Amino acid sequence: MPVNADRLWRRIEALSRITDPDRPWTRRSFSPRFLEGRRWLEAEFRASGLETSIDAGGNLLGRLPGIVPDLKPIVIGSHSDTVPSGGRYDGILGVLAGLEVAQGLVERGVGLRHSLEVYDFLAEEPSEFGLSCIGSRALAGALSPEMLELKRPDGMSLRDGLRFVGGRPEELSSARRQPGDIAAYVELHIEQGRVLESEGAAIGIVTDIVGIRRERITITGRADHAGATPMALRADALVGAARLIEEVHARALRLSGGEKPLVATIGNINVTPNAANAVPGEVEMILEVRSGDEGVFSTFGDEVVSGLRSHLADLRLSVRSELISHVPPTPCAQAIRGAIGKAAADLRLSFRDLPSGAGHDGMFVARTGPIGMIFVPCLDGRSHAPEESIEPSQAADGARVLAETVRHLDMVVE
Amino acid sequence: MPVNADRLWRRIEALSRITDPDRPWTRRSFSPRFLEGRRWLEAEFRASGLETSIDAGGNLLGRLPGIVPDLKPIVIGSHSDTVPSGGRYDGILGVLAGLEVAQGLVERGVGLRHSLEVYDFLAEEPSEFGLSCIGSRALAGALSPEMLELKRPDGMSLRDGLRFVGGRPEELSSARRQPGDIAAYVELHIEQGRVLESEGAAIGIVTDIVGIRRERITITGRADHAGATPMALRADALVGAARLIEEVHARALRLSGGEKPLVATIGNINVTPNAANAVPGEVEMILEVRSGDEGVFSTFGDEVVSGLRSHLADLRLSVRSELISHVPPTPCAQAIRGAIGKAAADLRLSFRDLPSGAGHDGMFVARTGPIGMIFVPCLDGRSHAPEESIEPSQAADGARVLAETVRHLDMVVE
Repeated sequence: MPVNADRLWRRIEALSRITDPDRPWTRRSFSPRFLEGRRWLEAEFRASGLETSIDAGGNLLGRLPGIVPDLKPIVIGSHSDTVPSGGRYDGILGVLAGLEVAQGLVERGVGLRHSLEVYDFLAEEPSEFGLSCIGSRALAGALSPEMLELKRPDGMSLRDGLRFVGGRPEELSSARRQPGDIAAYVELHIEQGRVLESEGAAIGIVTDIVGIRRERITITGRADHAGATPMALRADALVGAARLIEEVHARALRLSGGEKPLVATIGNINVTPNAANAVPGEVEMILEVRSGDEGVFSTFGDEVVSGLRSHLADLRLSVRSELISHVPPTPCAQAIRGAIGKAAADLRLSFRDLPSGAGHDGMFVARTGPIGMIFVPCLDGRSHAPEESIEPSQAADGARVLAETVRHLDMVVE
Repeated sequence: MPVNADRLWRRIEALSRITDPDRPWTRRSFSPRFLEGRRWLEAEFRASGLETSIDAGGNLLGRLPGIVPDLKPIVIGSHSDTVPSGGRYDGILGVLAGLEVAQGLVERGVGLRHSLEVYDFLAEEPSEFGLSCIGSRALAGALSPEMLELKRPDGMSLRDGLRFVGGRPEELSSARRQPGDIAAYVELHIEQGRVLESEGAAIGIVTDIVGIRRERITITGRADHAGATPMALRADALVGAARLIEEVHARALRLSGGEKPLVATIGNINVTPNAANAVPGEVEMILEVRSGDEGVFSTFGDEVVSGLRSHLADLRLSVRSELISHVPPTPCAQAIRGAIGKAAADLRLSFRDLPSGAGHDGMFVARTGPIGMIFVPCLDGRSHAPEESIEPSQAADGARVLAETVRHLDMVVE
């Protein structure tokens, strides 16, 4: 399965240049700029010989019929929308590599046993409606009527937003796939981290899209005048929070070496009253834990808090925690992980397993069949920023592994 | 020197009830409500037999001439303005106790050797012009022409504000006292902390109005995606900040037991980007250190930072600090501290030394002569809040100690 690396790179450059000129690289979902990108993409899909359509969920879909009737499709997908300022490769690499794989088959006159479908999913990034993965939700039947009523700041509803991008909110079920409806889903994406780069690996085989659990932890002491309250009479909530922050870090470091790594972060902290001359009375923090191992990450917060309770009591502090959200991990299918590994090995590319710490459309597509993801390194792990960067050779390596994976899956899956 | 405790308490209640009705207890400087309080206070001063005037700096001054000509005055003072919502006793206790001492002398027909002056200093609390201790600054010659141009949010200048309260900004020098111009200054104030209450002491003898040093400490790491960045690759600025917060607390605890106690507080912290899903890239904190010992508090921040530098480097973090402000301590005069102690002992009241962690007009009055301060406990240390509370007996004890202190100083100082 040869890949035209030059054509792939030219397309990446062409699509990324369809950007809001004052804040590259930006093509926000549901914007006129997004539609401009979609029109270009749709034309490329058609010119490559794919049956091209917009489904009811607003996804752009290119289809290459298979040779064997009634086999479920093999699906490749990613997204062409971007976050503000940072979408030069995130998403579009996967869509354009999928197009390249399909076009290669068309050009060589080779049919797969399975139909091949290439999706540009609508609005994978958090949209102005406060929702992400909108197109893949629609595919999985997870876009509810309540969600359609979400409003963006200018008052437009998601229902009308869907119409704006060519979707048909009144017939969403036509876009829906049932569990078992697809043979396999494979997505190529930039890593958005530094694991592959720091280990010199060309290809990452995603083991899981990690689960994410968020808890609000509140430490309460007593706000006091910082001048008039001696150290021994204080109940300084920030001093207790400091110990908790250190403990979260130390515990996560200990747990991060296993087969299913874990990360834990206190990224958000709010101190009351947060004045230079006041002893902090209360500190609210958000603890975020991510792992492919639901057992470990579910209990992480409780174990940290209960381990600190007596230390905090000594500081005259109380602590409480409250669950904000809990999204279980999405495992990648062993068969697809194996196919990716075989493809990388055949192409003599170094590879390693790693979890995806970020969310992807695969979380929803997994409801319809087995999924897998291929990562390629990005410079210094930077993503969602204008500096996001990959080399043409990295894009080509990823596309070749994608093509070989699809070829292999076509032979082994039903 | 008997004190009319009932009259003192009635006056405290009467003046505190002159409050903005929707947010008790509020009488902000430069407001019509403040002038309403001042009119009441001025009438009480006059009715008590004091020569009453408003000086050029907007201070209300009641004077009782002394018997010996040319002796410098003994001065009693505090303030009748309040912070928003919290001024039931803070300030007004000292003014009204001063009035009570002077009125007691008038009623008994007893003259002091020294003239006795009772000041209601203008705007001790931070005013809407962004400046505090405005009246005592004027007394000390520390109210500069630049300060007179300060504007409050509605555009009024402090110059016009001074006129509004009856001051004369064009002849400020007439309000000024030169170094050595006063024989002694004594102020009675609520403690605004819990030291006296927790030790069951009736009277506090202030050793120093502490110096205050503020430094901005910035810890810089690297903001990263919290999902895609394994623990081992992070440079989490908040984890470094946590260690620094704990170290500040531990070091201050160790240094707080000495003759001149120290307090150190990180009360203000700002995290960038402060998002649940981002590894913190930078943390800015304000370290505030207060002590009567300038040597110890000047080096506190540098010693904490240099002690942590290698730990922070291990976490891939850098740290820098920057001086925001440094106000040296104001020591209370040994002679006045001794007079307060003698007065308390004569009255069989328990007493102890303690620093004033909060600022007071004495910081400026000290430029004109020796100062001392008497503290009485307040309930649970609460101050600058509607819950601020003292018992009538505590007000009376403080006023009696003030009266005896003045009587004693009148005999021993020139």
